[in-house]
Amino acid sequence: MQQFDVVIIGASAAGVTAALTARRHYPEKSILVLRKEKQVPIPCGIPYAFGVVGTPEKNLIPADDLLTKNTITTSIGEVVTVDRIKREVELAGGERYGYQRLVIATGSHPVVPPIPGNDKKNIFAIQKDVPYMQSIIDALLVAKNLCIVGCGFIGVEIAEECKRRRPDLNVTIVEMLTHCLQLVYDEDFCTQAEASLKEQGISLLLDKKVRSFEGNGQVEKVSLADGDVIDADMVILGIGARPNNELAVKAGLESGPTNGIQVNRYLQTSDSSIFACGDCAEKVSFFDGKPSSLKLASIATMEARVAGANLFSVSRTTMGVIGVYSTVLGERAYAAAGLTASQAVEKGFDVVVGESESVNRHPGCMPGAKPLKVKLLFERASQIIIGGQVTGAKSGGELINTISACIHQRMTADAIATFQTGTHPALTASPIAYQLVNAAEVAIGAMKKEMKH
Amino acid sequence: MQQFDVVIIGASAAGVTAALTARRHYPEKSILVLRKEKQVPIPCGIPYAFGVVGTPEKNLIPADDLLTKNTITTSIGEVVTVDRIKREVELAGGERYGYQRLVIATGSHPVVPPIPGNDKKNIFAIQKDVPYMQSIIDALLVAKNLCIVGCGFIGVEIAEECKRRRPDLNVTIVEMLTHCLQLVYDEDFCTQAEASLKEQGISLLLDKKVRSFEGNGQVEKVSLADGDVIDADMVILGIGARPNNELAVKAGLESGPTNGIQVNRYLQTSDSSIFACGDCAEKVSFFDGKPSSLKLASIATMEARVAGANLFSVSRTTMGVIGVYSTVLGERAYAAAGLTASQAVEKGFDVVVGESESVNRHPGCMPGAKPLKVKLLFERASQIIIGGQVTGAKSGGELINTISACIHQRMTADAIATFQTGTHPALTASPIAYQLVNAAEVAIGAMKKEMKH
Repeated sequence: MQQFDVVIIGASAAGVTAALTARRHYPEKSILVLRKEKQVPIPCGIPYAFGVVGTPEKNLIPADDLLTKNTITTSIGEVVTVDRIKREVELAGGERYGYQRLVIATGSHPVVPPIPGNDKKNIFAIQKDVPYMQSIIDALLVAKNLCIVGCGFIGVEIAEECKRRRPDLNVTIVEMLTHCLQLVYDEDFCTQAEASLKEQGISLLLDKKVRSFEGNGQVEKVSLADGDVIDADMVILGIGARPNNELAVKAGLESGPTNGIQVNRYLQTSDSSIFACGDCAEKVSFFDGKPSSLKLASIATMEARVAGANLFSVSRTTMGVIGVYSTVLGERAYAAAGLTASQAVEKGFDVVVGESESVNRHPGCMPGAKPLKVKLLFERASQIIIGGQVTGAKSGGELINTISACIHQRMTADAIATFQTGTHPALTASPIAYQLVNAAEVAIGAMKKEMKH
Repeated sequence: MQQFDVVIIGASAAGVTAALTARRHYPEKSILVLRKEKQVPIPCGIPYAFGVVGTPEKNLIPADDLLTKNTITTSIGEVVTVDRIKREVELAGGERYGYQRLVIATGSHPVVPPIPGNDKKNIFAIQKDVPYMQSIIDALLVAKNLCIVGCGFIGVEIAEECKRRRPDLNVTIVEMLTHCLQLVYDEDFCTQAEASLKEQGISLLLDKKVRSFEGNGQVEKVSLADGDVIDADMVILGIGARPNNELAVKAGLESGPTNGIQVNRYLQTSDSSIFACGDCAEKVSFFDGKPSSLKLASIATMEARVAGANLFSVSRTTMGVIGVYSTVLGERAYAAAGLTASQAVEKGFDVVVGESESVNRHPGCMPGAKPLKVKLLFERASQIIIGGQVTGAKSGGELINTISACIHQRMTADAIATFQTGTHPALTASPIAYQLVNAAEVAIGAMKKEMKH
């Protein structure tokens, strides 16, 4: 049996990043990364494999390359048992590896809702698995009517990419909430996103529940709770994921309220020599510390950087998940960080909003000028930022990270309104019109006005 | 004589922003903005007026629009006297206006070095004045050999835009320092910028001083200190600016070590009912508090947001200038914030550097993928970030503002390495390869390695 200082289970965003971080912080330690799949898809790239990228093989994490050039050992095989007493893992094939520290980064499974008929042919969930993704593409190439269930990020991105790949395909998204992307954006941003989708010929059925999938062996129709029936010879489910915690449960590790592997702020599980990070790990909100079911690759890598650094000497903490998202619909970027207005109200915040829109060039006749709108949310008494949303030019994909830094540092509206930003005619709005600082100023103006009345 | 609660002198970036900020913070106050020029150029857009934008008239701050729709009075006229006892300003035409609070935002003049022959025809400094800018364009359209003196931002941007306007024009930049943009970037970034300029057919004469301008009435040649002579029927000087403090000096206000109007952290001058902001105001470094001669529109607007909010009730402070820059050379963005390595060493810092480069898409075959490199500088003992540089994709123009937020908040390498960023295949690097957090990790790795040896 081979002994390693560190054994990591999983080689997606969390596993690879945990390994690279461990290597950087513990140059002398031996590290083994075990993964069950031969090829590891880039999780956020999966929708694009269906469209602009073309094939799942072009959307892979170069795990072996990244790891071996950092003198990290990799091996393929499914871990079936963790023996916490002996500090060993055992693979399906019987091989065993000893560890001093173990990192579980087993990710998540797509949720398949218990809707009658969900086992019919041509109904797909998004498995992070190359052959399975290829089978989705094979079905896509001959489908006539695609029904996507769930209008979150995965749903809207897959809808767009399938339509890009097959402009003649009828694409319908069914969503039980009132708006697309409702868990991430305020209503004004949601309705804009809905307009983007409709412009591309994608049909939206909002506020609708699926009752059953109909068909003879293969899916043919989707029946809705209100009695409507949609033609659909292909269905993709994009309604979330659940933590893959089976191995941890079997090893006797605690699970948390959202069924993730329970971890502390250092990402240690209930066994302090075993860490968990990424989709499989339990999370709390950065804001109120309550359980959070957010699952994002960017959260997974943050957690992996905490876990990897803490393996032999605890130094980093995670204060919980902020939730930073971005996507592109049509040619317009949509990004968000922190709480939406309705989430903030639900958590008990008294919210003040500031918005600012301007083109991302100056003067506006500079080539490439596109509108870019920033919305910021503050807690009224402390003036601390608790959320932000951005839509418009693609540079918004980086601007949201400035907002995330502001949230992370609990900056006040005043601090954001006066912090120094770089601006340039060919890259950003003018310094007079710079959206981030102006949105903070607008919120301050709103607070001042209300204090007077 | 008309009375106003607030009188602001100047309607460029600082004056307009001070007025808008004052309006937001003091909705009931009457505000007058006085400016001497009919049309106010966007300062950062001036190089582009020579090229891609085409005319100075397309590069204007819409001052009257912006101000009048916020119920701010504007008037054109040059203020010649400030009577601090009577609290009045007098214009060249004899009109007088009373103020409760005065904001001086008179900007800067371009430096014209005392080089023999500097008064010859076709030698231009960059005056922020529309008819003058038009005269530069008129000369540009018939010139054969343009010599630009100074290889800072203005110099390199004007060189590119003149070449864009007149591809057949010979453009040479003469710079007395060893590298282009040396005051803003470390050597590796400078040499890349130099390569960008050369690719576009721009000649660089570095480490060279101008001895004299030769010619019979109009400039014909530029003589260098080393004896070389360059043909030049047009010269543009881009070697910096000096504060326009004449009016303030005449009114008996104190000046500071760089000849700016002396101000405190609230932007009050030595007369507490008179504020100054922008290029005309004295500045200190965010890092060590020493005098700084940085002049940027984005600094001017930050200061204007402090001054405008403080007019009748002091609440905002400026802790000094960070210096956040960006530009585009060829198709590549260059951006920087805070100190360069050599500036940091000069200030006495023990510097640790971390670099990370990756494409700004994932997978790398996504459309629009371009390399983007981030370099971060930390103080060794505290691990606090003191500078950052970015080059590559244009989204770097927003990424530098995330770095600025990190500097502003004095974040440590550890905090940057673990803060939560949003990533998306069509907008940014992958979460595993995200440049900002990885540059912080690389710096931490370097610190750990050195501690062992």
